[in-house]
Order: sequence, then structure tokens, then C-alpha cells
Amino acid sequence: MAYYIGIDIGGTNIACGIVNDSFEIIARSKVKTNAPRPYEEILADIKKSVELACSEAGISPSDAESIGIGCPGTCNSDGIVEYSNNLGFVNVPLRPDIEAAFGIKTYLDNDANAAAFGEYVAGAAKGAKNAVAITLGTGVGAGIIIDGRIYSGSNCAGGEIGHTVIVVDGRPCTCGRKGCFEAYSSATGLVNMTREAAELHPGSVMNTYIAEDGKVSARTAYKAMKNGDEAGKAVTEQYVKYLACGIANTINIFQPDILCIGGGVCNEGDTLLVPLRKAVAEQVYSRNSAKNTEIVVCSLGNDAGIIGAAMLCRQ
Amino acid sequence: MAYYIGIDIGGTNIACGIVNDSFEIIARSKVKTNAPRPYEEILADIKKSVELACSEAGISPSDAESIGIGCPGTCNSDGIVEYSNNLGFVNVPLRPDIEAAFGIKTYLDNDANAAAFGEYVAGAAKGAKNAVAITLGTGVGAGIIIDGRIYSGSNCAGGEIGHTVIVVDGRPCTCGRKGCFEAYSSATGLVNMTREAAELHPGSVMNTYIAEDGKVSARTAYKAMKNGDEAGKAVTEQYVKYLACGIANTINIFQPDILCIGGGVCNEGDTLLVPLRKAVAEQVYSRNSAKNTEIVVCSLGNDAGIIGAAMLCRQ
Repeated sequence: MAYYIGIDIGGTNIACGIVNDSFEIIARSKVKTNAPRPYEEILADIKKSVELACSEAGISPSDAESIGIGCPGTCNSDGIVEYSNNLGFVNVPLRPDIEAAFGIKTYLDNDANAAAFGEYVAGAAKGAKNAVAITLGTGVGAGIIIDGRIYSGSNCAGGEIGHTVIVVDGRPCTCGRKGCFEAYSSATGLVNMTREAAELHPGSVMNTYIAEDGKVSARTAYKAMKNGDEAGKAVTEQYVKYLACGIANTINIFQPDILCIGGGVCNEGDTLLVPLRKAVAEQVYSRNSAKNTEIVVCSLGNDAGIIGAAMLCRQ
Repeated sequence: MAYYIGIDIGGTNIACGIVNDSFEIIARSKVKTNAPRPYEEILADIKKSVELACSEAGISPSDAESIGIGCPGTCNSDGIVEYSNNLGFVNVPLRPDIEAAFGIKTYLDNDANAAAFGEYVAGAAKGAKNAVAITLGTGVGAGIIIDGRIYSGSNCAGGEIGHTVIVVDGRPCTCGRKGCFEAYSSATGLVNMTREAAELHPGSVMNTYIAEDGKVSARTAYKAMKNGDEAGKAVTEQYVKYLACGIANTINIFQPDILCIGGGVCNEGDTLLVPLRKAVAEQVYSRNSAKNTEIVVCSLGNDAGIIGAAMLCRQ
């Protein structure tokens, strides 16, 4: 049995897993990222996460075939993290440093790309030639797989589908543009739409849920809709409309075999998927083609990042 | 000297050229497409265009290395034109038929893809690893080159950047969606914006030009702007705003080395390019990256289709 070490660096935690040939995580470790702090300190904790996971698996790091790292930000082909806003990294030699520390072939890519690759290798996009994975979280993350390889453009900064404008002069986005797909279709976008609708409709049950929970969540409008609340229903319809727009845009460009979506809102299952697939089908340019993109939910959850990172050696 | 036969099938003309190793068209022919009419009749005229061009070059078709065809519509990897709205083709075996007719290795791709490949091999995108070519004509055509190969997705219908929505619920598009990039940034989009502005501003010199020319053209607003007309200036600013939006979206996804734009409006040169580059630079997610996409004007004009088709063998 061969082992592959996968590291998923997040703003909050550094998660490391030992992955086997069946794409199972047989051991894990988790240490706090505590970003921002000096690179050397974070690097030391990344190494620690590897040692902890290996110890948990009962192997030595040198027993592993390779190490793969998914890191937020722009990760170039020399293994340098050029820029990571979340971690405060500017031009840090992460891949060479880890490779030198353990003496094992090491790979590095952006965290969203690694997670998409995980879905491609072992999850919802398995068997696809071309695939796109879109994560609806705080933002909208995306990873593009073309012919079995991650596509990130000539400067390794591509794949920012979340930062394509779908409403010129629309909602402000964290990236500085207005009307980005992310501003509407992220969990944050859904929360904002829900808050606005709840304020506009004081009689909506959404206000009750918000008072109970002490906050607006991405579930508020869906819960209200299921209880027959008109204002809640309108929010979910509006959310699907924008989400379908961005997904149809993505399909018109990439026509992948599979487009998988992830993130908490996907827990709504068919309540989200059925109207979404219908709206997308009406909009894609290829609607008369024999073959159209399958829209499915990501299947690896938070493990996609670790598994994808561990399998970067398979590109 | 090796010769390559390139065929660019358009709604109006079938253009054929004999291309040499230096990417020069050394002989040409042109016959009317007269679409729609039966496939067999158009096929006969495609063959005729090849014979005429070869005769003009003083060669026999069998002297050529290969034949390449750029055809509107969805062209699959078996050389079948699955669907071409313009030509009225449904599942016609164009590549096998031409290959059988001349006994030479034959290639087929979508016409916009072939034109983009022409710019990549011999034009404005020469030397790029990844490139996108966008043509601002009646519609907005696009071709995507990734790692030296045309990308058209898993069903060969991809690359429809013109049919990505940039204004949810915006201007109706020929594809059935509302607010597509094409509805704003094509020459047709510019003409529509110009017509509306001229009607709104009876005192604008645009109305004089429209009366003189007997029609609104893609040049009307630019000509007015250059003569100090405020309403004309506003139209050109509005046009650049939408064009920059779609181009920044494309860059945020693909981060190509080069993005080249073609079509008549590009004859405006720096009058278009300077504000366009500025607006795009402000919007791209990679604005702090060391390397950013170069935006240039396509250099092969209408010959891109023939040269790109002829060179499809080089993929």
C-alpha cells in the first residue's frame, strides 16, 4: 500500500491527512494556522502537522510517495506562494521548504484547485475529462480541470469564476468589482439577500428564525420557504436565478462533462438542485446538443482539499 | 516548400487558401455559400473552392500536406458538423467527405476556433501558451487556446464567451438569454446603443451622420465623439464599460498570456484600446500579479480563418 501526504492550509486550520491508494484518509492531524504570523512559524506548524499525521498513521514521512499542499492564494509552478491575502504570504518558497524538510517529492497548488482535483480524482467529478468544481462558501471558489489537469492560466491566478461580473454595476464584491457572481451566489450573498428580504417583510417567518438563531444564516430563507413563507420562497428563487446564471455562463465557456457544486447550501439537496438544473438547462447554448454538462453536488466535503492535495502527484 | 489547404466556410462565402510554411496565403478562391441549401450542393462547392485555389497556386490538391476546415456550428471530434444554424447542417460528415474526396488528411473545427488558432500560430497571439481571441462582429465570437490546443469542451460546443451574461435581465440576446456579453459588445450591440442615444439626443451630430450614411453604424458614435459630441462620447464610454467587463471576466477565468480582439471596431485603434486596457486593468483579480494578460488587436483580419484552418494539423 502506498501513502500520500495531503496538506490543506486554511485561514483557521492546517489539516494534514495520510491518503492511501483507495483515496481514503487513514490518519489526520489538525493544527491552528493562527494567521497572520511570520511564514517561518506557519512553516514549522505545517511540518508539525505532517509529523503528527504520520505518527497517527504509524508511518514515517519518508514512507510516503509524495507530499501535496493546497494553499490559499497564487501558487506558481516553482512552488512559490506569490501572494496569499489570508495568510499574509508574499513570495514564500513553500514547496521547496517542505521538500527539503522531508526529502520527498512535493507538489503545491491553490487550495480551491486542489479541492477540485480531489473531486476529480476521487469524488463527484471522477471519470470526467473536463470538470469544474464551484464551492459556495464565504466566497465562491472554483477549480477547473481540463483533460485531467488543473488549469490556472499563464500566471497561476486563473479560475476565478467567482469574480466574473454577472450584474454590471451590481452588488459590491470584496475584489473591488461590482456585481460579481460571488456577491450573489456565495453563502454570504444568500445571507445578504435574506436579511434584506426579512427587513422588507416584517411579517415573514424569516424574522422569527433570525431572532431564534441570533443571526441570519444561509438556511433561513430555505427553512421559511419549506414552511410556506412567500418572502422566503422569493429569496430562494432569486438565489437560484443568480446561481443558475453563473453556472450557465461557466458551462457555455467550458462545456465540462461534470460541474460539481459544494458548500453548505448544497445540503438543501433537491430543493436547490431541481430548480437549479431546470434554470441552467433553459439557458445553456448547447441545450440542443446530444451531450450536456451534468450538475452534481461535490461528494468529498472538507476532505476534498486533503485528498486533492495528496493526489497532486497524479496530474 | 510544404502547402496546407485552409477552408473558411461562412454564411456568405466559402473562402479557400493555399498556405505555405511561412503562414502566407499564396493563392485563394472564393465561391458563394448560398446557405441554406442541401449539404451535398454546399459540399460540391467546398470541393470546387479547393480545386480553384490549387489551380491558382499551380499545385494539385494531392501536393498539399493536409486540408483544414473552419465551419460555423458545433464540429465534433469525428469530423461531423453536429449542428450549424447558419448553414442549416445537422449531423453532416464534412471531414470524412472532404478527406475521401481528396485523399488527404483533413481536419475540422468551428470557424471561430480556427480563426483563434490562426492568430495563435501566425498572428497576434503567436508565442503564447494560453490565449483567447474575441471577435466583435455581428455577434461576439471567441476561441480559446490552452497549451497550444483549441479548447472546446467535452461536447465541442464550448468557448461561447459571447453568451455569458454580464447583466442579469439585460438586453435580449439571439441565444434566448438576457444580458449576454454579445448583446452589448458586438458591433450590433454598439449600433443599438448608438441608435438609442441618437434618438434620445436629437441635437447630437450622430443624427447627421446617420442621415448621411442612411444607417447607424459601429463607427457613428466614434466619429461623433472625435468631433466633440457629448452624446457620442457617452456611447463610446458605455461600450468600453461593457466590453471591459466581459474581457476582465475572461481574464479572471483564463489568465491567458494574450487576449486578442478583432472585428471592425478595432480599427478605432488606441481610441478604443487605451480606455479599454485601463478599465480592464482596474478590474482584473490579478492586478497585483507580476504578470498580467496583454490585450492586443488581432493581426490577421479575415485571413485568420483560412490560416488557422490550414494549420489545424499543427495542434
